[in-house]
Amino acid sequence: MADNKISKAVIKRLPRYYRYLGELLEMGVQRISSEELSKKMKVTASQIRQDLNHFGGFGQQGYGYNVEYLYEEIAKILGLDRIYNVIIIGAGNLGRAIANYANFEKRGFKVIGIFDINEDLKGGMVRGIKVCHMSELEDFVKDNVVDIAALTIPKTEAVKAAEVLVELGVKAFWNFAHTDLNVPADVMVESVHLSESLMRLSYNLKNAGKGDE
Amino acid sequence: MADNKISKAVIKRLPRYYRYLGELLEMGVQRISSEELSKKMKVTASQIRQDLNHFGGFGQQGYGYNVEYLYEEIAKILGLDRIYNVIIIGAGNLGRAIANYANFEKRGFKVIGIFDINEDLKGGMVRGIKVCHMSELEDFVKDNVVDIAALTIPKTEAVKAAEVLVELGVKAFWNFAHTDLNVPADVMVESVHLSESLMRLSYNLKNAGKGDE
Repeated sequence: MADNKISKAVIKRLPRYYRYLGELLEMGVQRISSEELSKKMKVTASQIRQDLNHFGGFGQQGYGYNVEYLYEEIAKILGLDRIYNVIIIGAGNLGRAIANYANFEKRGFKVIGIFDINEDLKGGMVRGIKVCHMSELEDFVKDNVVDIAALTIPKTEAVKAAEVLVELGVKAFWNFAHTDLNVPADVMVESVHLSESLMRLSYNLKNAGKGDE
Repeated sequence: MADNKISKAVIKRLPRYYRYLGELLEMGVQRISSEELSKKMKVTASQIRQDLNHFGGFGQQGYGYNVEYLYEEIAKILGLDRIYNVIIIGAGNLGRAIANYANFEKRGFKVIGIFDINEDLKGGMVRGIKVCHMSELEDFVKDNVVDIAALTIPKTEAVKAAEVLVELGVKAFWNFAHTDLNVPADVMVESVHLSESLMRLSYNLKNAGKGDE
């Protein structure tokens, strides 16, 4: 159903559509016009029509979009129609925050293991999952299907852990370390650089009121 | 020194330049050519020259860039030449992760208060900062200069907290809640939508090997 030639810009916007459609579903809304969605999302209606037309046949003149259908189709496009096994490297606050976030599991991201170098954390539980020592990582990845590794450790350790995990066949990283990862082309990295996000905020604060560029 | 008409795309790339230049400084590198920086950052040398030329006069033919000078200039452009007082709303794992991240303070983001609705967390300490109850928020913001509020609470609470804080004059939000914030035009919001980041990863995993688009 989905067109394979969807541009990166559209893909980047899809999770936001998915979030808004999810909220509409929660509120019991069954259909919505591009104009209504436009008002909610603060995107032009023509942008919405253009984006959603990529997936073909969702909107109908005079009817609008079927919210549930669109939600499900976008889920499929985003790869949310399956379960992903996730391991978290780093049982500090950030690792725990991710492990504790029940909504990730609802969308198919299932945390199956948490690892930390700190002996003191070993054996502790986070949302029913036992924290293991890093020395147990290799055996764990060999014995289990691991789709995604979240790296919530400092940069030097993250680079090392990624090397080990790539070697073991892990194909996707959710990287929170303050560094880019050098991985082979068939390995996916999605980085969340929190410092860079904060800097965009300070830039905007500094330039507030100077007018839009 | 900085040209005010820098495009959003360049601004988006600046924090990454800043990070790489910081790493070079740590390694004791004093100057670098656009070609060397290009190899490290996996951006074309001409892109680097184009981006950095916006700030005028940093690079010199045959010499390259003065790393420290460029680092300092980018810091100024990003608004990192001052201190920002930050409060964190939500003393859960994510709020604690942010409060504990010493690097933010090194760059000028100083956490001066942490607030939570949970009575049990009240009085606890995070990196030397006492966790206060949400009922103390209003007085705190009136008595202190608060530049940025980080929202690490669920979406309904985040929307309410933002309303209160906007009313109290807070002009910048670092939003981790799974929602967009509706704020006046003079209030800045930088959102970190972790779910959307995960979905980009699942999309890329699903479409891996299908060729670049």
